Amino acid sequence: MKYCSACGAAVVFRVPPGDSRERFMCEQCQTVHYQNPRVVTGCLVTFEDQVLLCRRAIAPRRGFWTLPAGFLENGETAEAGAQRETSEEARADVVVDELYTVFSLPHISQIYLFYRARLSAPRFAAGEETEAVALFREHEIPWEQLAFPVIRETLEHYFRDRRSNRFPIRSRSIIVDPATRRGWGKPPG
Amino acid sequence: MKYCSACGAAVVFRVPPGDSRERFMCEQCQTVHYQNPRVVTGCLVTFEDQVLLCRRAIAPRRGFWTLPAGFLENGETAEAGAQRETSEEARADVVVDELYTVFSLPHISQIYLFYRARLSAPRFAAGEETEAVALFREHEIPWEQLAFPVIRETLEHYFRDRRSNRFPIRSRSIIVDPATRRGWGKPPG
Repeated sequence: MKYCSACGAAVVFRVPPGDSRERFMCEQCQTVHYQNPRVVTGCLVTFEDQVLLCRRAIAPRRGFWTLPAGFLENGETAEAGAQRETSEEARADVVVDELYTVFSLPHISQIYLFYRARLSAPRFAAGEETEAVALFREHEIPWEQLAFPVIRETLEHYFRDRRSNRFPIRSRSIIVDPATRRGWGKPPG
Repeated sequence: MKYCSACGAAVVFRVPPGDSRERFMCEQCQTVHYQNPRVVTGCLVTFEDQVLLCRRAIAPRRGFWTLPAGFLENGETAEAGAQRETSEEARADVVVDELYTVFSLPHISQIYLFYRARLSAPRFAAGEETEAVALFREHEIPWEQLAFPVIRETLEHYFRDRRSNRFPIRSRSIIVDPATRRGWGKPPG
């Protein structure tokens, strides 16, 4: 951020009066430009004993498998956002059930919310940000080619919970060490 | 938003190429300025059989009682944000337990996350945005003077769950009708 979006003057980065953190602020019109974490919302979609995954067509982690998810929009409930993202990325119309996993990712200032959702028929197709969409049984999950730790954790919880058919909401933080991050799998192909 | 924060040119409000929603965007440097919901995080703090409430010193709902909560900051986990807000608003150092309630508030583009938390001693004081802080037993809760529906719902869940000593995470959307909103209580005094 270089310019004030309210008046067009150059901004400075300092602690506003009465605040305790540095913010972009405008010394001309006094507007403080807060920057806050964003919410990513998506669905763990199932059909019979299978889970729907999307292979990413875009960075980051192009070529890796993910659950359909994306940024929540203004004016939208998290549930509606999860349904919309599933429609956009997997061309799938799902019935959204309950919230399932909640993650804090402070290193990228994001909160993830995954909902459990169901397909009534195996109808889906790759959306614009997706190379491929497919259904996987538990033993078919490409564990080494999953895009993000939140995907792996959500799938691990799901297959464990499915044995008891109880799906309590789970919440945790993922603290990423840049060194560890380099240890992730390589893109396939 | 009137000016591009990247280059200072005037922005337009239209659908960017490949998008489906109107955004503020810059025709000079092509930057799209996404605006997304913000996350509010706070604590349901208990001490023995009492719950801690703060009386708001600022708009909106000045003079009404609330749980300590505020906007999540970049680089922060939701849990750490809830603890920080409790420290700032109620000058209380709490041990944060589990996530408890999750709300979508699409009419104001916010996601609320409340955590259960405990005080080890009844030490607290009003922070800068707070007029008063106090502990309340269930029959003392000022139900007609609560600041927001998310506060009422979180407290209702808590007193119900406390009977069984089980506190599952609950998630829901609050859809506000402007007409209904006018029906809220009046500020006290």
